Amino acid sequence: MSRVDVGALVDEARAGRPLAVARLISLVEDESPHLRAVAEALSPHVGRARVLGLTGPPGVGKSTSTSMLVSAFRARDLRVGVLAVDPSSPFSGGALLGDRIRLHDHTTDPAVFIRSMATRGQLGGLATATPQALRVLDAAGFDVVLVETVGVGQSEVDIVSLADTTVVLLAPGMGDGIQAAKAGILEVADVFVVNKADRDGADTTVRDLRHMISLGRRELGPSWRQPIVRTVATSGSGAEDLVTALADHHAWLVSTGALGRRRAARARAEIEAVALRELRARWGGVRASERLDRLAERVAAGALDPYAAADELVG
Amino acid sequence: MSRVDVGALVDEARAGRPLAVARLISLVEDESPHLRAVAEALSPHVGRARVLGLTGPPGVGKSTSTSMLVSAFRARDLRVGVLAVDPSSPFSGGALLGDRIRLHDHTTDPAVFIRSMATRGQLGGLATATPQALRVLDAAGFDVVLVETVGVGQSEVDIVSLADTTVVLLAPGMGDGIQAAKAGILEVADVFVVNKADRDGADTTVRDLRHMISLGRRELGPSWRQPIVRTVATSGSGAEDLVTALADHHAWLVSTGALGRRRAARARAEIEAVALRELRARWGGVRASERLDRLAERVAAGALDPYAAADELVG
Repeated sequence: MSRVDVGALVDEARAGRPLAVARLISLVEDESPHLRAVAEALSPHVGRARVLGLTGPPGVGKSTSTSMLVSAFRARDLRVGVLAVDPSSPFSGGALLGDRIRLHDHTTDPAVFIRSMATRGQLGGLATATPQALRVLDAAGFDVVLVETVGVGQSEVDIVSLADTTVVLLAPGMGDGIQAAKAGILEVADVFVVNKADRDGADTTVRDLRHMISLGRRELGPSWRQPIVRTVATSGSGAEDLVTALADHHAWLVSTGALGRRRAARARAEIEAVALRELRARWGGVRASERLDRLAERVAAGALDPYAAADELVG
Repeated sequence: MSRVDVGALVDEARAGRPLAVARLISLVEDESPHLRAVAEALSPHVGRARVLGLTGPPGVGKSTSTSMLVSAFRARDLRVGVLAVDPSSPFSGGALLGDRIRLHDHTTDPAVFIRSMATRGQLGGLATATPQALRVLDAAGFDVVLVETVGVGQSEVDIVSLADTTVVLLAPGMGDGIQAAKAGILEVADVFVVNKADRDGADTTVRDLRHMISLGRRELGPSWRQPIVRTVATSGSGAEDLVTALADHHAWLVSTGALGRRRAARARAEIEAVALRELRARWGGVRASERLDRLAERVAAGALDPYAAADELVG
């Protein structure tokens, strides 16, 4: 293994060098031997970044909205990090040419750092790697970190829970959008965005959403009223309203103490994800793996049930 | 807790009583006190069902295709179970009225059992509950079990890995479909379906897909040639071709021994999911939970990194 001066890398990242940031994220992503040293070196510097989660069904304009928000924060001279964990996102490799071109300004801006997180691999891989990457950006002094995920599936819901403020995007005429919202993302939203608000049906979507919010109110308690912001991300229309809504929510988080509670919950989830991964790595050792194979054969053959097998594995 | 005669329930399920099947699935879903007794009672009866996974991006016609396949299998007098883990699926509650009506025939057929799996809840919840529900249907004597998932996100990829044969659905003119495919579902496909094949662009989609398959061939090895089946699920066109492709793949699985390997891999994943869940439950105990809270506070405050915290937790 090559020698890495972790302390120097963290210093460089904090001085604003994108290559150092990229290197640190690779180190935490790859489960390198330096992983623990990196995590330790980052620790004193975390907790300053505002973490925003953006989620919504495919086709709603998440990437364009992320791009719009990046512009709005840059206009306020804030440094912005983006973690894209959406397989359909142009950030993460599934780009249409037009989207890539639209993002080009940001990718050459040294105060903007964009990183896509692979969505494949081991169970729990993303659940560990994404919070670690977030810690790198936080420690490196980015004022805002945007975490963009597609709003379907359990792993995405888990990742959304990393955010201080979660923005759920919908668009007019997307039955799927409302369906996905029903399936769970409605509850995680702090701020709603109806994107493509210049299209037919935007009023209906806003009305439907308002109705759903009013129904959910009883359970959520009275303290935060989820705003609905209309945007046209392709033109930047509504960006200021969205930034205001985000600032309002941040102020609410601070004033109620919810920010500290959310961040403690995030840390708890992070510790658990790391711990589960460690345990899994132990089972992956040669002898443990053979034992698991033998148990699996017996379960597949109907000689043992998976609960009894798990008991034997955990021991 | 109410008294449950697990053995009698399993007997009733095996005799074809839908209520017993539903009851058993609820018992494994709810992590009831009877969970282990159910798992044990099912064990000797599993391993007979053919498990088919259906996945693809939203809007591709997964539910209609599932419905078409159910009809095709019923015409062969096979008993069919359906597990829908797609939040946008009509099976799982996000129905448009038309879809529900289309499915109505099946829902009143006692040889067809349809169950939607909730996509929300604890980390790993679905990863545990879906395979257990699959075991119930398998033990109850369903000849075929269809597992329908939306093809984005890590958890869905994990669930797809339950299947003996994975069918990936695409449709003409869906850039998203191809993007999703690129993001990973291409590799998990045993059989491709181009649904809505009567629409413009179907030939292009088939050609693109054939091209991608030829590029991927080198890595996959020569042994199974992924077929591309054209269907119009709303009219049932292509159903026979699809059933043939599925039978061909099953024959290939049996002749090469891949079936046994896949099922052992499924059992391994299942044991791991249960074991992780057990460990997580231990941490959820009152004292363990307080310890985790204190660790989380220190991590959130930057006094400890998550790896060091996980070490303390695991001990």
